[in-house]
Amino acid sequence: MEENEIPELKAQIPEWAVIEIDGIKRIERKFKFKNFKEALEFTNRVGELAEAEDHHPALLTEWGSVTVTWWTHSVGGLHRNDFIMAARTDEIYR
Amino acid sequence: MEENEIPELKAQIPEWAVIEIDGIKRIERKFKFKNFKEALEFTNRVGELAEAEDHHPALLTEWGSVTVTWWTHSVGGLHRNDFIMAARTDEIYR
Repeated sequence: MEENEIPELKAQIPEWAVIEIDGIKRIERKFKFKNFKEALEFTNRVGELAEAEDHHPALLTEWGSVTVTWWTHSVGGLHRNDFIMAARTDEIYR
Repeated sequence: MEENEIPELKAQIPEWAVIEIDGIKRIERKFKFKNFKEALEFTNRVGELAEAEDHHPALLTEWGSVTVTWWTHSVGGLHRNDFIMAARTDEIYR
């Protein structure tokens, strides 16, 4: 994926942020929930999607929130597929 | 809990590290698994413990690992109970 494609893809998932950790670009969104149980249920639903697609995010489950981070290890950064997975994560949340 | 109690309690959970984020002391351990599915199963088991005790950690689930972080919001740092929860997390892993 070319660097200049990011803004266009990012526009389709406005609630996600592009971040960089250890020199690797990632997209991240923190989803809010009313307690720990609902947060963990969301983690499991995103986990099911990840297993189905064999593409796995980092999922930080806390009381009242889940922070989801997508990136592609094999390219050391963002791939078009990460943006698709982010959009599908938004669908699960809705 | 007194600051000077930490080393004694910490000695009972040698694989955990005491870390400080945003001025708040926490205990953290990264548990390894052979894939995403097993990592997520562990997250759920620790989540069940958390719900049963009404004390909730941060659980970072990734492909092949879960990083568990315990601290106590109400005291803005570590409480004796966090060390007990860490020991029980170790038991789940074993």
